Amino acid sequence: MTIAVYLPLKDKTDWWVEMLQSLLPGWTIAALDTIEDPASVRYAVVWRPRSGDLARFPNLEAIVSIGAGIDHVLADGDLPQGVPVIRTVGADLTQRMREYVALHVLRHHRDMPRQLQAQAERDWHAIVVPVAPRRIVGVMGLGNLGEAAARTLAGLGFTTRGWSRSSKTIDDVETFAGSDQLDRFLSDCEILVNLLPLTDQTRGILNAGLFSKLAMGACVINCARGPHLVDEDLLAALDSGRIKQATLDVFHQEPLPADHPFWDHPAITITPHVASQIDAVTGGRLIAANLKAFDETGTCADLADTTRGY
Amino acid sequence: MTIAVYLPLKDKTDWWVEMLQSLLPGWTIAALDTIEDPASVRYAVVWRPRSGDLARFPNLEAIVSIGAGIDHVLADGDLPQGVPVIRTVGADLTQRMREYVALHVLRHHRDMPRQLQAQAERDWHAIVVPVAPRRIVGVMGLGNLGEAAARTLAGLGFTTRGWSRSSKTIDDVETFAGSDQLDRFLSDCEILVNLLPLTDQTRGILNAGLFSKLAMGACVINCARGPHLVDEDLLAALDSGRIKQATLDVFHQEPLPADHPFWDHPAITITPHVASQIDAVTGGRLIAANLKAFDETGTCADLADTTRGY
Repeated sequence: MTIAVYLPLKDKTDWWVEMLQSLLPGWTIAALDTIEDPASVRYAVVWRPRSGDLARFPNLEAIVSIGAGIDHVLADGDLPQGVPVIRTVGADLTQRMREYVALHVLRHHRDMPRQLQAQAERDWHAIVVPVAPRRIVGVMGLGNLGEAAARTLAGLGFTTRGWSRSSKTIDDVETFAGSDQLDRFLSDCEILVNLLPLTDQTRGILNAGLFSKLAMGACVINCARGPHLVDEDLLAALDSGRIKQATLDVFHQEPLPADHPFWDHPAITITPHVASQIDAVTGGRLIAANLKAFDETGTCADLADTTRGY
Repeated sequence: MTIAVYLPLKDKTDWWVEMLQSLLPGWTIAALDTIEDPASVRYAVVWRPRSGDLARFPNLEAIVSIGAGIDHVLADGDLPQGVPVIRTVGADLTQRMREYVALHVLRHHRDMPRQLQAQAERDWHAIVVPVAPRRIVGVMGLGNLGEAAARTLAGLGFTTRGWSRSSKTIDDVETFAGSDQLDRFLSDCEILVNLLPLTDQTRGILNAGLFSKLAMGACVINCARGPHLVDEDLLAALDSGRIKQATLDVFHQEPLPADHPFWDHPAITITPHVASQIDAVTGGRLIAANLKAFDETGTCADLADTTRGY
């Protein structure tokens, strides 16, 4: 019984193969491209598999996404139908996302980009901002990561809103649900954090129309998926001042191409998809536990809903 | 009965006079330098008074520091003896300091300075850091602000330590007290936040000896008072790599002189004494409430201990 592993970078694949082998000593773990007997593969552990990669395995029982999202798996037009997809979520990943969201919301809240610019000019320029309770911050998407982010922001004192497809209740967070309540959620929102899953309904949701409903000069943080954002609409909104600043962790193409206008835009902070990185040590343990549970019981806690898309 | 107001900047003084007058309509509020009858002055509301400013008033009943610290008042060699000093503390100021400490600890934790440098070079360079629970963060000083900062850092998931003169107990924070326990507090500490009061005991406490006891390559955040830090020791520790980065909100001389080497040091982030700014709107309310209470009862909640120095 074999587990096939694929990530776009070969050295990362090798690291994952090694970690999973040490955690699952009774199984055979191999890089997907080195598999000689496709019929032996029962599980595939993948990040951004190439189209057709998974269709090669006739006896595939489950696909593991190395990440909280499964969009990169569902994007494969030749994906074998009916094979369960297992997400990778866990306390470490949630913790990392909480840190990222807290850091970048606070950076925009206290206007660190402008403060750093003042330092570069040796300008003793005090930037006075409202106190966090007078600042409305909104989190789109209230799954594991979004809920943890919203709770963290409320804990820091921000007036915090959350928006999701179906209604949720979170202490100290004003929640909104569905497209009917989206405009109310966005209204007066000064810092917007996107943590939605990427589906046909959410693709391109960060667009000119949405930006126009936020508070004038709002900041936008995208730490979900690149295709949530319409790049040109963000550039136009920054140029017009409709949006003041943006922090982007995810992009349509990753790594972000060297000639992309985001790189040196003065109002854009770029982080290279590190908001909640899954490393082979932490992620390997989560994946090994899920695979053992699935192998024994036919199910596991982190099974995704492939019809819903997350 | 008159309240004399002094801040180094005249337009700020005027703003405070106006705010306090609107909050205390029955009293006479005047800029200290415009007082014609010194005997009429019962209270002084000051930030960094000049030596001798307060000795002019023979009937002074209390001095109000426009800030949580009273060091800038006690620094006056001609300070009238035995006059009570009232600090200015409150939920808004505590909230601002929590935000500042959370922001700057997270910035160092996630190595934003290096991440921004990578962006400037169009370098898709993922910086992997330990998760916050594996990072030891220490807060020196556990007064109103220090305790709130420590609680906030613990809430964000950091392994949090606190150090103070006398022992304190704070949930989820490992506390240390007195000079005997300072070395243990510093040991393995990766991010150090200074929120001590400035006294003869704490002046120059951030020096080469202290830096050498932190984890190698630790980061230091000073948001208390400039004279806590030995500037030359910090520069040497940054040059040797003993300290990796520093964020400084306070300085020996403020505004920081334009030719100071801190301004363009690549490992130093400068903020212009904005960690917890007291504005005349928020601070005016706190001060008016304290003065009313003091005037009626002869005491108030925020009375400082001038013998202890905070």
